[in-house]
Amino acid sequence: MRIARFQLGNRVRHGVVEGNGIREIQGSIYQKFNYTGNTYPLSQVKLLAPTTPIHFMAGGANYPDHLAQANATSGRPGAGLSIRPWSKGSLDCVCGHEDPIIIPPDAKEVHWEAELVIVVGKECHRVSPEDAPRYILGYTCGNDVSEKASWEKDFSNWRAKGMKNWGPVGPWIATDVDPGKLKGVLRLNGRVEHEWSCGDMIHDCPSIVSYISQYYTLHPGDLILTGASGVTTAMKPGDVVEVEISEIGTLRNPVVAEKV
Amino acid sequence: MRIARFQLGNRVRHGVVEGNGIREIQGSIYQKFNYTGNTYPLSQVKLLAPTTPIHFMAGGANYPDHLAQANATSGRPGAGLSIRPWSKGSLDCVCGHEDPIIIPPDAKEVHWEAELVIVVGKECHRVSPEDAPRYILGYTCGNDVSEKASWEKDFSNWRAKGMKNWGPVGPWIATDVDPGKLKGVLRLNGRVEHEWSCGDMIHDCPSIVSYISQYYTLHPGDLILTGASGVTTAMKPGDVVEVEISEIGTLRNPVVAEKV
Repeated sequence: MRIARFQLGNRVRHGVVEGNGIREIQGSIYQKFNYTGNTYPLSQVKLLAPTTPIHFMAGGANYPDHLAQANATSGRPGAGLSIRPWSKGSLDCVCGHEDPIIIPPDAKEVHWEAELVIVVGKECHRVSPEDAPRYILGYTCGNDVSEKASWEKDFSNWRAKGMKNWGPVGPWIATDVDPGKLKGVLRLNGRVEHEWSCGDMIHDCPSIVSYISQYYTLHPGDLILTGASGVTTAMKPGDVVEVEISEIGTLRNPVVAEKV
Repeated sequence: MRIARFQLGNRVRHGVVEGNGIREIQGSIYQKFNYTGNTYPLSQVKLLAPTTPIHFMAGGANYPDHLAQANATSGRPGAGLSIRPWSKGSLDCVCGHEDPIIIPPDAKEVHWEAELVIVVGKECHRVSPEDAPRYILGYTCGNDVSEKASWEKDFSNWRAKGMKNWGPVGPWIATDVDPGKLKGVLRLNGRVEHEWSCGDMIHDCPSIVSYISQYYTLHPGDLILTGASGVTTAMKPGDVVEVEISEIGTLRNPVVAEKV
């Protein structure tokens, strides 16, 4: 099932995506919902970030082919050897499919990081890796937009990771998928820049949820980035970046310069 | 004026504190409000964190007498020489007067950091230091609870700063105060551990708001810690910690061990 959050007119609603249509629902996507009977063409709604999280976290560097770059730009040797979570730092970075990634004038090198994103479905604290899947609602695509020139050396990653619209997620939540079997593609201006298998993660999704929950209480709708694969590259205003993950869909965002 | 957020029964309300009473208001504390005519004794309400922020930020090390400790525990030489903001990382750390500071079993050295907190009153982005005061609603007391043994070496300060209830703020917002003239006292179990003058800040409050707003959009209710003074010390379960700032009031919190 694919669960989307969308806007039609002034109202924000949820729906289940089927083919080119979206069947509106009422109730809670985390507990129980019913169909309203209304169906809208996908082309006529504005897809939003699929949740409004309280926490937007990450599990840390998590693919062998990304470790050298992660170590070099963050100055944190050893990334990836254990789960090393962090927070995006600002909820203003959350945005959805087709929302613009905004580049401020003094951001020197702003990279895409194409990632599978865990969507938490139930409140949890101190859950085991074995129990963690019960607290996961599903998965979506994410772009952990990151400034690599120098901002990752800030004490917290407030600028490197948390700038407005630097955390696009979407287009919707796919439930009933096996994260270890998913395949990802990153396209920049339609050209394939990177392909990866989510099965190459060093730490799997339940382990990441379990680890973070040893410290934080996770809430329904919380989002957890599971790490970038490969060597990421810079985006510039005018680019269009797409994160496509099999069985989920494609998250597409234009890149624009901030108007100052 | 002292503006509080409080709970009475099941309802969350706002009010203006006068003497030992709180005059209930309706409307927006950021725009326009009226008195409802109800007044409650302070002793009969539960004071809450005075806002529900979207951003809980800090301006970075900001007092000359705290720099050596900040550099040693964070591994970031040069803290304080310029404004170096960071994010508390989790909004679950926000709590109010008398709420418990919860110590997890593997947090080794959890310090108080007594600080003046800026309360943002209006949305702002890219404001100058000269214009920044127009976007500040007032000030409150804060305790930037921080793990100093090793967690400040995490990539983001998610555990060092962001654990549940590690950001007590309150007891209310004081408007119409001059932050440069305020005096602070930190008491641990009734004993004065530290006293300071907010006038000793390296970077003043308007400069911090202006700097953060060059990158983030700040929203009404956002909270900005302005830095600890002095050499902080560890708290342990059973302690009671108080941050008192002149013209504002006293933020008091018991310290408890997490039940696991």
